[in-house]
Amino acid sequence: MGLLVSREEKKEDTIIKVGNATIGDGSLCIIAGPCTIENPDQLNEVAEGLAKTSVNILRGGAYKPRTSSYSFQGMGKEGLDLLSRAKELTGLPTVSEIVDIADLSLFDDVDILQVGAKNMQNYALLKELGRQDKPVLLKRGWANTIDEFLESAEYIYREGNHNIILCERGIRTFETSTRNSFDINAIPLLKERSHLPVIGDPSHGTGVARLVLPVSLAIVAAGADGLMIEVHNNPECALCDGFQSITLEEFKLLENRTRTYEKIRNFNFPSL
Amino acid sequence: MGLLVSREEKKEDTIIKVGNATIGDGSLCIIAGPCTIENPDQLNEVAEGLAKTSVNILRGGAYKPRTSSYSFQGMGKEGLDLLSRAKELTGLPTVSEIVDIADLSLFDDVDILQVGAKNMQNYALLKELGRQDKPVLLKRGWANTIDEFLESAEYIYREGNHNIILCERGIRTFETSTRNSFDINAIPLLKERSHLPVIGDPSHGTGVARLVLPVSLAIVAAGADGLMIEVHNNPECALCDGFQSITLEEFKLLENRTRTYEKIRNFNFPSL
Amino acid sequence: MGLLVSREEKKEDTIIKVGNATIGDGSLCIIAGPCTIENPDQLNEVAEGLAKTSVNILRGGAYKPRTSSYSFQGMGKEGLDLLSRAKELTGLPTVSEIVDIADLSLFDDVDILQVGAKNMQNYALLKELGRQDKPVLLKRGWANTIDEFLESAEYIYREGNHNIILCERGIRTFETSTRNSFDINAIPLLKERSHLPVIGDPSHGTGVARLVLPVSLAIVAAGADGLMIEVHNNPECALCDGFQSITLEEFKLLENRTRTYEKIRNFNFPSL
Amino acid sequence: MGLLVSREEKKEDTIIKVGNATIGDGSLCIIAGPCTIENPDQLNEVAEGLAKTSVNILRGGAYKPRTSSYSFQGMGKEGLDLLSRAKELTGLPTVSEIVDIADLSLFDDVDILQVGAKNMQNYALLKELGRQDKPVLLKRGWANTIDEFLESAEYIYREGNHNIILCERGIRTFETSTRNSFDINAIPLLKERSHLPVIGDPSHGTGVARLVLPVSLAIVAAGADGLMIEVHNNPECALCDGFQSITLEEFKLLENRTRTYEKIRNFNFPSL
Repeated sequence: MGLLVSREEKKEDTIIKVGNATIGDGSLCIIAGPCTIENPDQLNEVAEGLAKTSVNILRGGAYKPRTSSYSFQGMGKEGLDLLSRAKELTGLPTVSEIVDIADLSLFDDVDILQVGAKNMQNYALLKELGRQDKPVLLKRGWANTIDEFLESAEYIYREGNHNIILCERGIRTFETSTRNSFDINAIPLLKERSHLPVIGDPSHGTGVARLVLPVSLAIVAAGADGLMIEVHNNPECALCDGFQSITLEEFKLLENRTRTYEKIRNFNFPSL
Repeated sequence: MGLLVSREEKKEDTIIKVGNATIGDGSLCIIAGPCTIENPDQLNEVAEGLAKTSVNILRGGAYKPRTSSYSFQGMGKEGLDLLSRAKELTGLPTVSEIVDIADLSLFDDVDILQVGAKNMQNYALLKELGRQDKPVLLKRGWANTIDEFLESAEYIYREGNHNIILCERGIRTFETSTRNSFDINAIPLLKERSHLPVIGDPSHGTGVARLVLPVSLAIVAAGADGLMIEVHNNPECALCDGFQSITLEEFKLLENRTRTYEKIRNFNFPSL
Repeated sequence: MGLLVSREEKKEDTIIKVGNATIGDGSLCIIAGPCTIENPDQLNEVAEGLAKTSVNILRGGAYKPRTSSYSFQGMGKEGLDLLSRAKELTGLPTVSEIVDIADLSLFDDVDILQVGAKNMQNYALLKELGRQDKPVLLKRGWANTIDEFLESAEYIYREGNHNIILCERGIRTFETSTRNSFDINAIPLLKERSHLPVIGDPSHGTGVARLVLPVSLAIVAAGADGLMIEVHNNPECALCDGFQSITLEEFKLLENRTRTYEKIRNFNFPSL
Repeated sequence: MGLLVSREEKKEDTIIKVGNATIGDGSLCIIAGPCTIENPDQLNEVAEGLAKTSVNILRGGAYKPRTSSYSFQGMGKEGLDLLSRAKELTGLPTVSEIVDIADLSLFDDVDILQVGAKNMQNYALLKELGRQDKPVLLKRGWANTIDEFLESAEYIYREGNHNIILCERGIRTFETSTRNSFDINAIPLLKERSHLPVIGDPSHGTGVARLVLPVSLAIVAAGADGLMIEVHNNPECALCDGFQSITLEEFKLLENRTRTYEKIRNFNFPSL
């Protein structure tokens, strides 16, 4: 392909460091937190709970690109302020989604800027993020091919920002039992084609809390550099996507299991 | 559903007037022009050719959200200037795609602002366009349901801009003989669910120039308020999507045939 | 491609005659009747009603390959007997689906053997039907490409039976507002690639009775040789697929409109 | 759902024993062998090679339902004879695909009857296999939902044959870099909904030999009861699907790795 994000152009894995977290070095980077920041108590309870685990990065959405304009759109600036306080409290680096270039200055204290699936081909946004000096977590659009995904990463990379994390989060298919179909093939395929770190989001990839654990294990086994998991203190009352969020208790089990798989996997898959 | 863009909330068809063109009154509004404005000669040749036909609106892209960052991205401001001159020359109202809010001031002389399929869920853009006082042509995302399409229109509508044209342009499926699968069901379904005008784009909907005529006829027969057709003076040398562009000659045949179908169709489909 | 069913191998349209009906000569062949034969009264009422219209062929299912083994599987032999009597009564040729080679002898009085979407790649069945001396109506599988569809027709054709009718009946996509997405592109594409007649089934193609009329008009406009329509005397009480069946009253309107479109269309689409 | 194949109707896992192999008891059952039996040397070389590993069941296709009628359709009866000899030679139980009820008597010495993806809804075949007294390996159709998959299994089960192995083998999506998209969600979902054993086929699920190892590991991690792997002595010269076949050498690595994962996984996923 000849893209700058391709293995052809750069053989060595791109390794990204954010605070104490490292992504792309063969270890498993676990990102967790609530889909949406709802109020101080909710975020603090989740963040403090996660801080007691081996979680590496805290996630929390303040600007939510909701399908319906009548759904809760996130707390905005106030939400980012809460995220800053949670960061201070826990020492964990943070990631949050940005949907509008105009909001950029509000993200000063956010460590990783997330581009959601709906904006994967919002090139104006990608180019602007390519000019920032902090990592970008780019989610694959639910109907975008691997080729298109890498082309979108290239929009960011070419502008000078080389710290891009690719995130597979499920694709849209005919299946209705799950919200999306997690494209497990994408994990080794992206690792093969690109030097950028690749993580998986089983929360969106399944849309079913009960499936988050087994699909997380699959993602680790397939060779991903990380996981992105939605955790909520009270999933049934979540303002957004509660059906796919797991509890802190469930997260501890997931953490335990995935760390076991992390230990036994051999990151250098021999070329089959 | 209760959306403001739904028939439940407003029974009568929304009729949009732009210059001498009218969309949504039962007539067939034909929008045609090059995918991308390439140079003065190309645009003028196409525009002058079209001005001799019954075409209603001139299209021409100046900002192109291309999958690859290495593809021609459009002439930008210079392209919009050429479009203004073509408008002056032909008296035809114009439509052009906007991809970045920051470019808004450059679109002063463009009559209809187009949102492309890749930006159908770029809500920051939609909300800003909802505050403008000119019509918006909103294309359906290639993997978005009818429900999501209407929810995106609602983002614009709620901000105060009620002049929205819905455009079906094909969806992404497993079929590889065509670029997209034109969702013909969407035409009567959107007309039933919403009071907004609905048009079809068979150029993207097929991605095959030879199929543009028969699929155009199908779109008209299914009850659409308009067509959006890519016309090029020399498709084989087009800088973008030449394979799906038809020539002026071919356009004249398409115009002739679709106008015949326009005459015989009864726009008030009895409720079957 | 070089297939025997392709235009490359045979330029002239294949024209199929069945009783008084002709398919593939540029006229519009309308096939209608109940999805499933339920009892003598139901079939007779529908058949007699249709016999008063310009319908060309009567359809009626006796063997139904239902997704659930607990759904009504059709009346079997008894249903075919009823169909024979309806044929006698109305003088209309008939078509019915066959799902098992073992049933072949029971279809002696059926004029056209239908292969359903679920069996499009049941090659044992296709090969056997290729050795029969009556026309085969082959439905496209809901997740099969145009190429695969033609390859399946080839299985029949190679065995010696050249009277094959291709039927587009909608493909499976992510859209949930309709049962399937009718692939309107397939109509002109199949006509271009193959010399076999091509018809459309808007009943399965939409799964919504209200959409059957506009999509029928689209199918005719796109150049199809025929339509296959589910008609029921009492759709709300139908044992199978009532939601997509139209009434006799509605069928008369559909017949009237599609015949108008039949008159004005020019079957020789100039090569665009 | 209330299906007989569902967990609601039977809580305990169905465990199937074939020769020395067991499927569904928590261990990992590895099925491997050539896609298609081509000649004595090929089958013997692969079978003897596999017999030296921990493989549990030998696969080999003799009747191949090929998309094109011009492709190699398998060796038929002669192929099954070769498979019998390989079985004798290695002591491994065998599985082979049946496409036509008429061939049933030829499968006397085959231990497991396979139904391919194209025949998942060939109910005449399913019902007949439901009356046999040997296990059936049922592959999911590439565009069938989990619900439809279980409904097809029910067709077999209801006839009295309860020894059914469900096989996820990838679904058809818009992605073109892989032949299919392996639906990893299906593994835990099927295990949750049904008491039948569930295996995964990463050869068809990816269509890319290089991806077979990582996706195999993912399948094991997600909780599958087995794997079905295409192995060829000379993939580049294979008469069918060589691009997705791995060599014996590669298989040994795969076996080694998946056995490690088998040991560490906990088959009773706590209900998340």
